[in-house]
Amino acid sequence: MNADPRTGRLELGFDVPALPGMDEAEIQTPCLVLDLDALERNIRKLGAYAKAHGMRHRAHAKMHKSVDILKLQQELGGAAGACCQKVSEAEVFARGGIADILISNQIRDPLKIDRLARLPLLGARISVCVDDIANVAELSAAAQRHGTRLDCLVEVDCGAGRCGVGSPEAAVAIARAIDAAPGLSFAGLQAYHGPGQHVEDFAERQARMDGAVAIARATVDALTAAGLAPAIVSGGGTGSYTIESTSSVFNELQCGSYAFMDASYGRVRAADGSRLDKGEWENALFVLTSIMSHARSGRAVCDAGLKAQSLDSGLPTVFGRDDVTFTACNDEHGIIADPGDVLAINEKLRLVPGHCDPTCNLHDWYVGVRNGKVETLWPVSARGKIH
Amino acid sequence: MNADPRTGRLELGFDVPALPGMDEAEIQTPCLVLDLDALERNIRKLGAYAKAHGMRHRAHAKMHKSVDILKLQQELGGAAGACCQKVSEAEVFARGGIADILISNQIRDPLKIDRLARLPLLGARISVCVDDIANVAELSAAAQRHGTRLDCLVEVDCGAGRCGVGSPEAAVAIARAIDAAPGLSFAGLQAYHGPGQHVEDFAERQARMDGAVAIARATVDALTAAGLAPAIVSGGGTGSYTIESTSSVFNELQCGSYAFMDASYGRVRAADGSRLDKGEWENALFVLTSIMSHARSGRAVCDAGLKAQSLDSGLPTVFGRDDVTFTACNDEHGIIADPGDVLAINEKLRLVPGHCDPTCNLHDWYVGVRNGKVETLWPVSARGKIH
Repeated sequence: MNADPRTGRLELGFDVPALPGMDEAEIQTPCLVLDLDALERNIRKLGAYAKAHGMRHRAHAKMHKSVDILKLQQELGGAAGACCQKVSEAEVFARGGIADILISNQIRDPLKIDRLARLPLLGARISVCVDDIANVAELSAAAQRHGTRLDCLVEVDCGAGRCGVGSPEAAVAIARAIDAAPGLSFAGLQAYHGPGQHVEDFAERQARMDGAVAIARATVDALTAAGLAPAIVSGGGTGSYTIESTSSVFNELQCGSYAFMDASYGRVRAADGSRLDKGEWENALFVLTSIMSHARSGRAVCDAGLKAQSLDSGLPTVFGRDDVTFTACNDEHGIIADPGDVLAINEKLRLVPGHCDPTCNLHDWYVGVRNGKVETLWPVSARGKIH
Repeated sequence: MNADPRTGRLELGFDVPALPGMDEAEIQTPCLVLDLDALERNIRKLGAYAKAHGMRHRAHAKMHKSVDILKLQQELGGAAGACCQKVSEAEVFARGGIADILISNQIRDPLKIDRLARLPLLGARISVCVDDIANVAELSAAAQRHGTRLDCLVEVDCGAGRCGVGSPEAAVAIARAIDAAPGLSFAGLQAYHGPGQHVEDFAERQARMDGAVAIARATVDALTAAGLAPAIVSGGGTGSYTIESTSSVFNELQCGSYAFMDASYGRVRAADGSRLDKGEWENALFVLTSIMSHARSGRAVCDAGLKAQSLDSGLPTVFGRDDVTFTACNDEHGIIADPGDVLAINEKLRLVPGHCDPTCNLHDWYVGVRNGKVETLWPVSARGKIH
């Protein structure tokens, strides 16, 4: 299909960056592009690994915020369900037909707790994390009000220094309260170490995660001794899943970024010293951008700025090119060093974003590409769902 | 109006953070909150300044992306029209009834040029920037195809090192080509120095902007000598508008951030050494956040992370509080140092975001507050319009 500039395609104000059947060269930039072959290989690979190690994989949907991609993770990778971080996100996935959703976060606002407790009415099993015993009564009251049941995981701070209780005793006390509370079920333990995922050196990361595993193990032991053996011990991300999978403590993974990869995870090293994006995983997510000004020699300007990508984990890299370098990012522009003046106006580049999660949340659509053609257009279903 | 947790308010999936009439304490976080009194004072103040100095003010709508706020800038501040950065943004403002829109950027993609050339059919005067003589024929062909007229400003690089021609001679050559091209009118000069706005020391900023004014002046002189005296010389932002306004070269300002302010502009100093957010402008924009975990002493966790605010210009500050400090930001969480353990679960804080533009673009709604009550709910009309 060739885009006819006279018809415009976008007359209705439905601002899509591409339509299935288009050539990749016709895609409107900046936008998110998925290499569908790479995405499917990443998904199958983690699915096979989890299966071989007897782990459930609850895919972290906060990363892609896409019902379509979560379903692909179930279909090709055997994912057992989704993690979300917000009630409004979980609403999107429950309405999208996902049957098992964990909000891997604390919910404390009364209105949000009410929305949470109504979610099982959509037919999904809903789990949520708790790190404060006062939260138990709030959740129980809401579940009773709606005649629903919420599965509760006690979150333990396994070294990340964010949410989660600080001792096995505190975990046991909350688990007891959950177990005794009408409308709630004690389902297990949440033990995820976020910053540990991104430690680039493998040995250093292993040491950090060994500490996390030790905390999880001590908490499991204390719960078991109290007659509250946790059915689920959930954690593990793209930087650490091999450690949790061989720990004999965890039985559920929460990997998300493995499916897309980004420049930040690309710098992380595997056990053999190789970059995570060279061998273990493939870059499947790109911000497609076009050159829109080249008024001076040596420096081109592209159309992907701060509203097309998040800089929190550094600048993007230019995929497959070592002759040009992304050097700076303004609100609406990227500056590309082009020492050979090789870039032409309207030439497209694939940027590997610094951090996939907040970058995806900036966009409304994923453009899925295979063999140079647009194959799918998937909405970023939970884009902006931060409540 | 009291929110009833049993009714939920949000049954329809129309995920709004507040409704007019609510108490501020009931607002669902994280979300953008506007102090309407402060916003109106900022808008009136710049309007009065521009009028007193004989300058048109074309408010930069890329900052707030809101038709409602642009109309307030016209009504209370006498704004003469809007700047945008993208065709899809301009479409939103043209459909919203804004009659004079400048896309202060280059448009090179054939489909986008076609959309641009159709915009005057909506009744708006549309202007666009040009920094490459090859662009003139592209724009002219599209305008002729649709029977419309596009006003073209030649963009000059006045030291920012991004888009724009590098010499007065190049500006004259493009202006001549525009003047001769069917469907196009040569309207003037775009001379905006983005990075100069954020130089914190006043004398250093003045020196940088004096250089920009000198380049603009030399270009105006060359155009005038060529019989192409520019009707519009447009530039100036929140950090520099006093310099352009007294330059005798510029006649149009493009200030945007003055209306909201942010932590980055707050660090910039006025001529008298005072911070820009202490006297010259007021903080009118906040990311409202709630405490949702406080499992350890000394450290609280709030619900505003990287998907609620952009970190490109640094961390947010906590407005009106010197007893707590925002110290780190993850995808969905902010970490707040709380040495006195004074923060309670569900307590709300007003964060001043590091950078207003990309932060606003993350949200769907502005919640306008006055005297502790929600007064308005305005859509971020052009949120995500990056094409």
